[in-house]
Amino acid sequence: MSQANLMTGDPYDAIARLGTAPLWRYYGNLFAAEPKSRAVPYRWSYAALRPYLLHFADVLSLEEAERRVLMLVNPGLTEPPATTTNLYAGIQVILPGETAQAHRHTAGAFRFIIEGNGAYTTVNGERVHMRPGDLLLTPGWHWHDHAHEGDGPMLWLDGLDYPLVNALEVGFFELYSERTQKADVPDDISSRQFIHGRLTPAWDPKPSANSPIGNYPWEETSRAFDAIADDASGSDADGVVLEYTNPWTGGPVMPTIGCRIARLRPGFRGVSRRQTPSTIYHVVRGEGVTIVDGQRLEWGEKDVFAVPGWAAYEHRNASLSDDAILFSYSDTPAVTALGLYREEYVR
Amino acid sequence: MSQANLMTGDPYDAIARLGTAPLWRYYGNLFAAEPKSRAVPYRWSYAALRPYLLHFADVLSLEEAERRVLMLVNPGLTEPPATTTNLYAGIQVILPGETAQAHRHTAGAFRFIIEGNGAYTTVNGERVHMRPGDLLLTPGWHWHDHAHEGDGPMLWLDGLDYPLVNALEVGFFELYSERTQKADVPDDISSRQFIHGRLTPAWDPKPSANSPIGNYPWEETSRAFDAIADDASGSDADGVVLEYTNPWTGGPVMPTIGCRIARLRPGFRGVSRRQTPSTIYHVVRGEGVTIVDGQRLEWGEKDVFAVPGWAAYEHRNASLSDDAILFSYSDTPAVTALGLYREEYVR
Amino acid sequence: MSQANLMTGDPYDAIARLGTAPLWRYYGNLFAAEPKSRAVPYRWSYAALRPYLLHFADVLSLEEAERRVLMLVNPGLTEPPATTTNLYAGIQVILPGETAQAHRHTAGAFRFIIEGNGAYTTVNGERVHMRPGDLLLTPGWHWHDHAHEGDGPMLWLDGLDYPLVNALEVGFFELYSERTQKADVPDDISSRQFIHGRLTPAWDPKPSANSPIGNYPWEETSRAFDAIADDASGSDADGVVLEYTNPWTGGPVMPTIGCRIARLRPGFRGVSRRQTPSTIYHVVRGEGVTIVDGQRLEWGEKDVFAVPGWAAYEHRNASLSDDAILFSYSDTPAVTALGLYREEYVR
Amino acid sequence: MSQANLMTGDPYDAIARLGTAPLWRYYGNLFAAEPKSRAVPYRWSYAALRPYLLHFADVLSLEEAERRVLMLVNPGLTEPPATTTNLYAGIQVILPGETAQAHRHTAGAFRFIIEGNGAYTTVNGERVHMRPGDLLLTPGWHWHDHAHEGDGPMLWLDGLDYPLVNALEVGFFELYSERTQKADVPDDISSRQFIHGRLTPAWDPKPSANSPIGNYPWEETSRAFDAIADDASGSDADGVVLEYTNPWTGGPVMPTIGCRIARLRPGFRGVSRRQTPSTIYHVVRGEGVTIVDGQRLEWGEKDVFAVPGWAAYEHRNASLSDDAILFSYSDTPAVTALGLYREEYVR
Ligand SMILES: [Fe+2]
Ligand SMILES: [Fe+2]
Ligand SMILES: [Fe+2]
Ligand SMILES: [Fe+2]
Ligand SMILES: [Fe+2]
Ligand SMILES: [Fe+2]
Ligand SMILES: [Fe+2]
Ligand SMILES: [Fe+2]
Repeated sequence: MSQANLMTGDPYDAIARLGTAPLWRYYGNLFAAEPKSRAVPYRWSYAALRPYLLHFADVLSLEEAERRVLMLVNPGLTEPPATTTNLYAGIQVILPGETAQAHRHTAGAFRFIIEGNGAYTTVNGERVHMRPGDLLLTPGWHWHDHAHEGDGPMLWLDGLDYPLVNALEVGFFELYSERTQKADVPDDISSRQFIHGRLTPAWDPKPSANSPIGNYPWEETSRAFDAIADDASGSDADGVVLEYTNPWTGGPVMPTIGCRIARLRPGFRGVSRRQTPSTIYHVVRGEGVTIVDGQRLEWGEKDVFAVPGWAAYEHRNASLSDDAILFSYSDTPAVTALGLYREEYVR
Repeated sequence: MSQANLMTGDPYDAIARLGTAPLWRYYGNLFAAEPKSRAVPYRWSYAALRPYLLHFADVLSLEEAERRVLMLVNPGLTEPPATTTNLYAGIQVILPGETAQAHRHTAGAFRFIIEGNGAYTTVNGERVHMRPGDLLLTPGWHWHDHAHEGDGPMLWLDGLDYPLVNALEVGFFELYSERTQKADVPDDISSRQFIHGRLTPAWDPKPSANSPIGNYPWEETSRAFDAIADDASGSDADGVVLEYTNPWTGGPVMPTIGCRIARLRPGFRGVSRRQTPSTIYHVVRGEGVTIVDGQRLEWGEKDVFAVPGWAAYEHRNASLSDDAILFSYSDTPAVTALGLYREEYVR
Repeated sequence: MSQANLMTGDPYDAIARLGTAPLWRYYGNLFAAEPKSRAVPYRWSYAALRPYLLHFADVLSLEEAERRVLMLVNPGLTEPPATTTNLYAGIQVILPGETAQAHRHTAGAFRFIIEGNGAYTTVNGERVHMRPGDLLLTPGWHWHDHAHEGDGPMLWLDGLDYPLVNALEVGFFELYSERTQKADVPDDISSRQFIHGRLTPAWDPKPSANSPIGNYPWEETSRAFDAIADDASGSDADGVVLEYTNPWTGGPVMPTIGCRIARLRPGFRGVSRRQTPSTIYHVVRGEGVTIVDGQRLEWGEKDVFAVPGWAAYEHRNASLSDDAILFSYSDTPAVTALGLYREEYVR
Repeated sequence: MSQANLMTGDPYDAIARLGTAPLWRYYGNLFAAEPKSRAVPYRWSYAALRPYLLHFADVLSLEEAERRVLMLVNPGLTEPPATTTNLYAGIQVILPGETAQAHRHTAGAFRFIIEGNGAYTTVNGERVHMRPGDLLLTPGWHWHDHAHEGDGPMLWLDGLDYPLVNALEVGFFELYSERTQKADVPDDISSRQFIHGRLTPAWDPKPSANSPIGNYPWEETSRAFDAIADDASGSDADGVVLEYTNPWTGGPVMPTIGCRIARLRPGFRGVSRRQTPSTIYHVVRGEGVTIVDGQRLEWGEKDVFAVPGWAAYEHRNASLSDDAILFSYSDTPAVTALGLYREEYVR
């Protein structure tokens, strides 16, 4: 059949029927000069949200209570809901006596504890207790459930990478055979074995890209800041910023999510910088403002705020007498592993 | 202010105004039991598309000619156009005398040459000549342009990871200061230095996660198949399948894309398997059928077909006398680096 | 020239003159069935040596005082003096007011502090203070000197890999331009920044195969043992044994030397095991016996003992009420990096 | 008991009895300013040795024939015999019909074929055939034996790291249960699967620090030099020098030994450099001189010469018309893995 014969219809119709599109007529921008995230800079007010969290703790049905989480939805990323391009943040509240159905998922997760005492998460058979300021890990495909045996409500920040996992279309989910895992090792054993002195148990080593530490307790984090005191130079953009590390590798706690804690000294005013990964901050203590692509995010204690990828950010501690402490997490490990990390100072 | 006072309006309105959404009322599925790609199994017929490629080679304006590519758009991934979740394929045709404006982008890219002779791509100052069956790399942020100094049209498969790079919102693009790069090293030097005998230049080593090899020539690939002959067991799913490797690491050619070439012996009938990464195949030679999640993709010479992530696939060489040769690329390196690789046989 | 002509003399003389030896007449054993170290199992009694250390502290000339170290010479390794095949141990004593000439060497070194207070080592410009139970690192080619500003004698265990470095003939040595380094960072800063909570400073990262931590203080090590308590299974051969790690890698503190601290619970009786690396032990606390290739090494507080490579060892804590704490170091990192690690249980 | 009482004898005698030696009375040099190898620069003349090799091929008893190797003994390293500090070289000759008893040892080994045809080495069940210029690997603990089924004598260079393995006291040796291994995979399969095009079999991957390639054939090496031609800058000290690599890692062929092949162009005159590892050269082709610490080693075809660690060397090709081709091996991988590599130009 000759080429001429094939061309009797509209060739553009023909190639469309053959599953193709002409690049020369595509007006979308597949190659932008630089990234422009759909996510926007945003701050969530803990003071404003807390009463509602407690309200819903009162009124939700038993079934709903298990998902009693306010998703911190970036206005630019509403469906599916996400907080930055690859990451999710939510605030969860549970009440004494409540438990959650054990399950696991491909998405990596952590909890940073905001308020309350007496609850624990069971991760792969280890009960890990939660206190304010603690960072608890539930890496991908680790079984987890929780229970609250204390008094009063317990609130925490949930962080996950499900937006990334779902964008990659690689996510699995499974319910545990029973509602609750049995503890099969001593409570909090991973933290107790791994947290002190850069000492690592040398029997039965099981190195993994996921940290084996169930809890990076605030008590230790606090000790770190006390020890460093004012003797460290720190980062000109991020202050005295410490990375939570995986003891087996010295690297981030999970292959997709890195967690950090930073102290901005009284009066700290960071330089402006941007980087390809996005970051979600939680204010552990203090108040200040972060200027993100020219937009002022004023933050106070326990607020959460989002800095999209490649948005310039500049932190300022509003107090001349008190520290600000910022917990943060980002998709830096994922972006770096793919050779896609880039950063620059913004004059 | 008391909690009661805050609750005078509808609390759901209030929390929405505060930038949050109640997880307990979210009915989307953030945690599916297993991945279900939006991409569908699909085959693009080279025999059907070729006349149109040649037609457009005739009729396009000079300006349009530079983007004379048919994008192989997966019916499930039309906007932005993609071939599988993280990967793109297109077929490009250029004519003698044509050139392309030099540029670079974060997205990693390669060309697998289908037809023609006499063109070259200049990659970071090295002219790399193209012959059918050659695999040419243009890793992320490498300058590239091309020119055709031979006779007759030249057609190739373009592969890129821009869907991944854009989903992660980390992409940059830049035009070169001139239309064309000057050659500043001898032509094809990288291939000549690195391709033979697992020998690596030991002066001035510059290890990188991107392979330094501009061209993995078909001549060498052919030699590999000849040398292996029928003496290899091969993979029960993929036949005698060889990975193009980065000499500095022994790993994939780019951090996001892995490239392979497989020989399915006469009568080969693979077992059915699925894996979280997605794969795009190009039929270098032969004909057969690949059954993807129950759907038969019949393929002939030079066709392209897509196997979405976590879709079960089963290759069959239709000939009892001739080999089928399948070039393929996938996002396996990216998925693996993030700890998200999973595979299973499907009975 | 014909072969016959060449053969007029004794061919064995001829080949000897040509720099060769006939393998078929070599009766040494180049390939033994298994390793048999020249080193022997040996214990050094701290109680017996201490008075002499103090005696020499009194009587040595100023010039000699700078090298006031008793080398723990393995009876099988006298010239050059070594403690095991690749490692050296010595006990050093310094007095208030004494200092040492700053220098550096290829050999990696550490100090494990036995007695005293008030001295410090300056390592690459950082003053690191020493207290009993502290592990101080001076990795290869780091400048170091020390000074004693406290009261009373200060005694420590010196560990080095110079036998390995010298066997490989790769050692360099250099004196500092002045007697003493100036402190150019705050005292003990490395430990304060890196020791707590698996938190790593995230500004200006300088990953290295040598740990950046100047001091792994006993206070933290003690905290680790307290936290683990009796909840760990531990090693059947080594008890609750913890590896000091390099925060950048999660691996050993230096590329050639690994350091560990073990708690043998009351009544602990280890299984018998052997491994290709050799190990030197220092008894931090307690008493017991280690059976090495059938030979009983009875040890008490602060003693040192050597287990040669591939010698079967079996630890026993002699007390039914008190812990024994054993600090140890070995060439495991070196042996492992070369693919030469092997271990086995000995029935 | 008081300190005074202990001091009634000579304290130097006492501490000697306690297994120690006073460092302040040790006059050996544990810390030299820079390395000074016991090995000396040396050249072994193949032309001179070859008649004796053939002579001994004639006259040795059957039992002796199995060890018919001339050890190239460095005058500075006679007992145990070694060629440089960590490495050994020997020249072996075998006759048609001869075989060797199968065995394995911890020491890594290779053969670089000098003359003859028709013999093969069986390595872990794979028969690997030898032709001049081929590099055959028998990594540590791989079973090996050989047989000669061709005509005429077969001569090769044996390279091993037993001096290193024995210095570390980690060597094992084992005889195979039978005299000869049976072939259990197709002949030369590893080379055929791995040698061409940087393509790596992607089924059943078994990455290891030892290369899986039994033979790096001269045919491929020659192709590499032809392809590079005169288009490479090369090393100013080593010429166009290529490293044989392990396909799984891109690194050296074994964890302890690196192998290279270099082309010195007509008239090449290298700069003078020294490095901590030592190197043994074998002249594949050509003639020239290498000046080692001021000493001239004149070399011709098939000679072997040794450059001790930290000795300055400077290569010169004596011909203005012909290439010189130097095969070499060194302990660079071992020295580098331990953080002990250092090099410098010597003016
Ligand atoms: Fe969950
Ligand atoms: Fe601690
Ligand atoms: Fe491009
Ligand atoms: Fe080749
Ligand atoms: Fe020293
Ligand atoms: Fe601590
Ligand atoms: Fe052997
Ligand atoms: Fe080849």
